[in-house]
Amino acid sequence: MSIDLAALRDGVDRPDEATRDAALERLDALAKPQGALGRLEELGAWLSSVQGVCPPRPLDRARVVIFAGDHGVAASGVSAYPTEVTALMVRTFLDGLAAVNALARTVGAGVRVADLGVAVDVEGVPAEVIRYKVRRGSGDISREDALTHDEADQAFAAGMAIADEEVDAGADVLITGDMGIGNTTPAAALIGLLTGNDPATVTGRGTGIDDLTWMRKCAAVRDAMRRGRPVMGDQIDLLATIGSADLAAAAGFLVQAAGRRTPVVLDGVVSGAAALVAHRVAFRSALWWVAGHRSVEPAHGLALDRLGLTPVLDLGLRLGEGTGALLALPILRGAQATLADMATLADLGLRPAAEPKH
Amino acid sequence: MSIDLAALRDGVDRPDEATRDAALERLDALAKPQGALGRLEELGAWLSSVQGVCPPRPLDRARVVIFAGDHGVAASGVSAYPTEVTALMVRTFLDGLAAVNALARTVGAGVRVADLGVAVDVEGVPAEVIRYKVRRGSGDISREDALTHDEADQAFAAGMAIADEEVDAGADVLITGDMGIGNTTPAAALIGLLTGNDPATVTGRGTGIDDLTWMRKCAAVRDAMRRGRPVMGDQIDLLATIGSADLAAAAGFLVQAAGRRTPVVLDGVVSGAAALVAHRVAFRSALWWVAGHRSVEPAHGLALDRLGLTPVLDLGLRLGEGTGALLALPILRGAQATLADMATLADLGLRPAAEPKH
Repeated sequence: MSIDLAALRDGVDRPDEATRDAALERLDALAKPQGALGRLEELGAWLSSVQGVCPPRPLDRARVVIFAGDHGVAASGVSAYPTEVTALMVRTFLDGLAAVNALARTVGAGVRVADLGVAVDVEGVPAEVIRYKVRRGSGDISREDALTHDEADQAFAAGMAIADEEVDAGADVLITGDMGIGNTTPAAALIGLLTGNDPATVTGRGTGIDDLTWMRKCAAVRDAMRRGRPVMGDQIDLLATIGSADLAAAAGFLVQAAGRRTPVVLDGVVSGAAALVAHRVAFRSALWWVAGHRSVEPAHGLALDRLGLTPVLDLGLRLGEGTGALLALPILRGAQATLADMATLADLGLRPAAEPKH
Repeated sequence: MSIDLAALRDGVDRPDEATRDAALERLDALAKPQGALGRLEELGAWLSSVQGVCPPRPLDRARVVIFAGDHGVAASGVSAYPTEVTALMVRTFLDGLAAVNALARTVGAGVRVADLGVAVDVEGVPAEVIRYKVRRGSGDISREDALTHDEADQAFAAGMAIADEEVDAGADVLITGDMGIGNTTPAAALIGLLTGNDPATVTGRGTGIDDLTWMRKCAAVRDAMRRGRPVMGDQIDLLATIGSADLAAAAGFLVQAAGRRTPVVLDGVVSGAAALVAHRVAFRSALWWVAGHRSVEPAHGLALDRLGLTPVLDLGLRLGEGTGALLALPILRGAQATLADMATLADLGLRPAAEPKH
């Protein structure tokens, strides 16, 4: 099997410009000074354009998909914590007791876990969780490929299938989540290569590693970038060489969501790395995404800049899982509600020129 | 009648420090890397300390109070729009068709309108809306007092009574909203005086006034600041001289909410001006508030800096009504939920030192 990336690229359209224009016109007619809702107005117009309808529909079926996997590079000492934690957190997600679950409940979003490459098989999980598992762990990207080309293909296709399943089940907004000890290392290497920044610039502290661990992580990122550079021209090869099954699936998910005209709220640096790869596959796909937040990982902001996305929130988060994106969801809902539910100036007997001034 | 401000000051305690410490300890024990939830952790600890319980309780009964009033200074040409719009917007709030209503519905908050000084009497409004009306409009602060001392006293006491009513009815978080053509002029003058900044620094564009209107507004702010400086030592006199009935009520509301140990989410520049005055009445009251957002009005950031408050959101809003504070409410709820509903590392069989690293 080999995915036809050119066909994927052609399958992603631009969001509807005419609907965006209609939304901007409506925003100027609402009972408020022009532009007074700031970023909310831009988000409302974007939501109109991706839904292809003005005013936009409420976002009632939000779904987080957490792409979980382990990373061989963790054995190089880039993380202070053992690989076993990935499986423990998968269990915690399924028990509804992680941060992502707590936040998802406050905003009424569903959470799905997809084990693409966790090092062990978590026992007693629903079939849905392991349906797309590609392998147990990945190679240490500082010295060997994460996956074979076929495995990367398979993981990318799995992410596409998951996007299809979610959209077919009625999701009206998707959120990318991640879980995997060591996953900021491939994320940093991918972002370093795809944005043209050096290893020390893109390597962050992850959960708060010490200086010595950070230096080891920098070296691993440097070695991975060196290994990845020759295959930058093929995104599947790049994901196989210095990515992972979970990153490949997230990238496939992001491209397919765009192909299915479904908005996505991106989360943190791992989500951002997958988005950069997806953007190289289909350059119009970023038009279907919004950046939920800016994390403290230095590579994250660089990825968002390259994607042309401005984060909605900046709360100093560095957890992943989809947490930052979930926190941004109510802002999107506010953008939808103001555009859909407000009176117009004309309703108040005022002309658009005479907008209220407070 | 004259309010005993010294008694009010003594009636405002600090939030509970021991509960804050317990929350910080719990945050470090949760199934996440230490500090990984960034600002959410600080907000969760704050919420614990104001509620006096760890983990904090959900915020199920949020209430916005919109303090509405007209401003004589609008006649000086500081606003592009007529005073009549204030009453039209009061009507729109009651009809549920303004931005604040649309946003309040998305987060399940109640909206109350209090007409303290609208220039006309809006017909057919519930008795609750006009119960505390002090007068119709206020004096032009660039050349005369906004209110008499007794009127300012009465408005301040009205705000306190409204806070009591809301807390007694079960509100667990309050939001300050505002409506009034011209109200950024007294807000700028108060913030200029109380932060020691000059008129050109604190005078903003409001709804987007042109250069000529901005220069007139600057002059009005300058004249108001000159008139207010001699009475800076008495907050009621200051509100009478260069404030308004709606600002005085908002200030009383903020002090009393703190006295009743009830958290408040502040909104924009008008809310910020009232908060600065309330802070001078009772310096510990700011410990009970969180800044929902930073608006584009230049005086707003200066007020928040002086209050020692860091805004949760920065979305380029400049609408007032309580809109920015409502958008921040889900972030507070996320802080509550993560602190209350997550598993601990010990639940996962991990020691606190071995926090998950993604």
